[in-house]
Amino acid sequence: MTGKRIAIIGAGPSGLAQLRAFQSAAAKGEEIPEIVCFEKQDNWGGLWNYTWRTGLDENGEPVHCSMYRYLWSNGPKEGLEFADYSFEEHFGKQIASYPPRAVLFDYIEGRVKKAGVRDWVRFNTAVRWVEFDEDSGLFTVTVHDHAKDHVYSETFDHVIVASGHFSVPNVPHYPGFESFNGRLLHAHDFRDAREFSGKDILVMGSSYSAEDIGSQCWKYGAKSITSCYRSAPMGFHWPDNWEEKPALERVEGNTAYFIDGTSKHVDAIILCTGYKHFFNFLPDDLRLKTANRLATADLYKGVVWVHNPKLFYLGMQDQWFTFNMFDAQAWWVRDAIMGKIEIPADKETLLEDVRERETREEADPDTKYAITYQGDYIKELVAETDYPSFDIDGASEAFFEWKKHKAKDIMAFRDNCYRSVITGSMAPVHHTPWKDALDDSMESYLQN
Amino acid sequence: MTGKRIAIIGAGPSGLAQLRAFQSAAAKGEEIPEIVCFEKQDNWGGLWNYTWRTGLDENGEPVHCSMYRYLWSNGPKEGLEFADYSFEEHFGKQIASYPPRAVLFDYIEGRVKKAGVRDWVRFNTAVRWVEFDEDSGLFTVTVHDHAKDHVYSETFDHVIVASGHFSVPNVPHYPGFESFNGRLLHAHDFRDAREFSGKDILVMGSSYSAEDIGSQCWKYGAKSITSCYRSAPMGFHWPDNWEEKPALERVEGNTAYFIDGTSKHVDAIILCTGYKHFFNFLPDDLRLKTANRLATADLYKGVVWVHNPKLFYLGMQDQWFTFNMFDAQAWWVRDAIMGKIEIPADKETLLEDVRERETREEADPDTKYAITYQGDYIKELVAETDYPSFDIDGASEAFFEWKKHKAKDIMAFRDNCYRSVITGSMAPVHHTPWKDALDDSMESYLQN
Repeated sequence: MTGKRIAIIGAGPSGLAQLRAFQSAAAKGEEIPEIVCFEKQDNWGGLWNYTWRTGLDENGEPVHCSMYRYLWSNGPKEGLEFADYSFEEHFGKQIASYPPRAVLFDYIEGRVKKAGVRDWVRFNTAVRWVEFDEDSGLFTVTVHDHAKDHVYSETFDHVIVASGHFSVPNVPHYPGFESFNGRLLHAHDFRDAREFSGKDILVMGSSYSAEDIGSQCWKYGAKSITSCYRSAPMGFHWPDNWEEKPALERVEGNTAYFIDGTSKHVDAIILCTGYKHFFNFLPDDLRLKTANRLATADLYKGVVWVHNPKLFYLGMQDQWFTFNMFDAQAWWVRDAIMGKIEIPADKETLLEDVRERETREEADPDTKYAITYQGDYIKELVAETDYPSFDIDGASEAFFEWKKHKAKDIMAFRDNCYRSVITGSMAPVHHTPWKDALDDSMESYLQN
Repeated sequence: MTGKRIAIIGAGPSGLAQLRAFQSAAAKGEEIPEIVCFEKQDNWGGLWNYTWRTGLDENGEPVHCSMYRYLWSNGPKEGLEFADYSFEEHFGKQIASYPPRAVLFDYIEGRVKKAGVRDWVRFNTAVRWVEFDEDSGLFTVTVHDHAKDHVYSETFDHVIVASGHFSVPNVPHYPGFESFNGRLLHAHDFRDAREFSGKDILVMGSSYSAEDIGSQCWKYGAKSITSCYRSAPMGFHWPDNWEEKPALERVEGNTAYFIDGTSKHVDAIILCTGYKHFFNFLPDDLRLKTANRLATADLYKGVVWVHNPKLFYLGMQDQWFTFNMFDAQAWWVRDAIMGKIEIPADKETLLEDVRERETREEADPDTKYAITYQGDYIKELVAETDYPSFDIDGASEAFFEWKKHKAKDIMAFRDNCYRSVITGSMAPVHHTPWKDALDDSMESYLQN
């Protein structure tokens, strides 16, 4: 193991899980490779590291953050809790089930602070280019250290790509966008719902961003919300000033026209049209190209790049499970790198694994099936490592309940609570209904 | 010459000048090297290629465009006219002196369409990395072809960096930005002034962006404009609803506090705080680091990279002159590459040239001196090539007049006209005062 060097790209939830995975092995007395984590931002936390900035950051790099002020978890924390670091351990008590961003950031950070791995991260360092050399079997990683405005290269035995896939927006064009007289932005650049107070908002899309950003704007006083869908409406019981429309056809001045012939005056258009898997630091032979789905293309066990098994990707799946899935992946990748898990040498075996996962995902379009499918994936990985086993079916149950709660009242589902599958304790009911809780600070949230 | 390959990075005004420079030599029967121009956008024109997009573009690349709707040239066209392609040649008549963006785009494009060089440009192709190999004396340029989602590398004898320096915003932080409840953007992301109609706008900065974006917002109905400066006020005779303040201290909610103790309610903050020289595709030994000034650091004759004279930069100076200066540079670089101009082999000579330019620039802070200084630079380059000589002092005179017209009436300076130094004809007075001309289309502008 000594002498091996591992590059991790990104210090968000996936990258930090990888740091913790290696550190936990070291804590058990194992000899671990040298770990270098390159992080573009000036702090860790990835998407959870909030910034007011949009577009390009203070170093000229694309802003990673897609989060906004007042964001609360849109799924129960009981579905994402770390098995090796419970919410109760971190906060000294059980907390309510849908924490705001700052609370979740604090939780994520708490584990890696305790692990003492901050020195492994090189902040303000953007990865410019990665290449693999067949002869040496090594990767050359070229990075830009913005603090020193210095570009340098180092070689590594393995590269783990943990740069996320919710930072590079997919931005469609519709006729009239080029001459729209209002505010036009992608969800990636949405920051403060109060900006839209008193305004007529068009939210394009029918997935989580549309649902949550629309709800935020409603909560903080938008005059009206119109959401439009291409395939099917979200179908929740929306407030009176929220209307669902079919697809947008075009915009003229400040009027949006929909394919059913109706139209609406809008002050702002927020494109909740998803994100791209985008890796501007990877050549063709190392670059993942995949749809946003549960069975990612070209990744054996969801993490090993089948075309070069020295390269790993974390968290590239579409996600029901998040932090705990990244953990399962990170522990598994650690053990593959440390030789405790063998990756089949035969490429066909790797590809067969991918095909099997794809076929199984496609077997049933049902949501419950999908959640269970991803839960089973986590079980599979956890079983092969020393990551603390936990009640994954119980976590799936929290998701099932969550779906029911959303169907019942989309503006009140966050007022429910669930039981931790890590500590067994029930979350308290939050002191204020979500729709009335305008203060999203950690101080406010923890006053239970 | 045969066999030599030249890479040009960027097909904006500088890159297109370079294409035209080589094509004009070919048209005279000279044998020219193979030219490959890499352009990130799907069309040429650089900053003049308008897009409604902000942040990241349809390919996930940072949006290059910093221009906005309704932008009219902020300097007289008589100061930037191509010596080899007059406005009269392009439009079939003389036109007024401050054309809107679409008119200038058409003019820039007209010359290169006539030259027939579009096939030299590879569009939708972002340059990822450039390296120089001492042994072969060649550059390897690695690019991402977004149309094919394919990364490839090619080698070149010379690289000409023409990617501009008004696309990567310099974005300072002020206390309270992270919790500002309104719209907060850099000038780079400003698109449609009508969005700010009826609003109280704070424009931070005292240079061209602040002056012009503030004026746009005023023209299109902003309720009030506040501009703030760090060193000195712009000092124009502003309309009644425009106030100049000293530097911003902090923001609280929607209130901006200035260092003189005054405060103002603002709905939007537009950061007109400048741009960075930023090259995310260049290693340390090739990367220009310079202030935005007339005498650029480390560039012999303002174009030759002193640390590796096979590499050239175009248009990296701060600019009074623009298109015609890029032309002078491009013709000079062409002749250096084609061996008609000799670059001194001794690095100390190159550095001495840079120092001399710096010293001379710093000798006098006067604006007229600076304009003359840059005019003299163009004269120097033009004298060494076959670029058509023209009355550069006459062009400088247009700038001197322009400064006077701005001082007289900042909202009316564009109603003046000047004489072309290329054709000798006087520009017509535009049919509508700028402040009343809400339609910025080419059709409208050309109705003289």
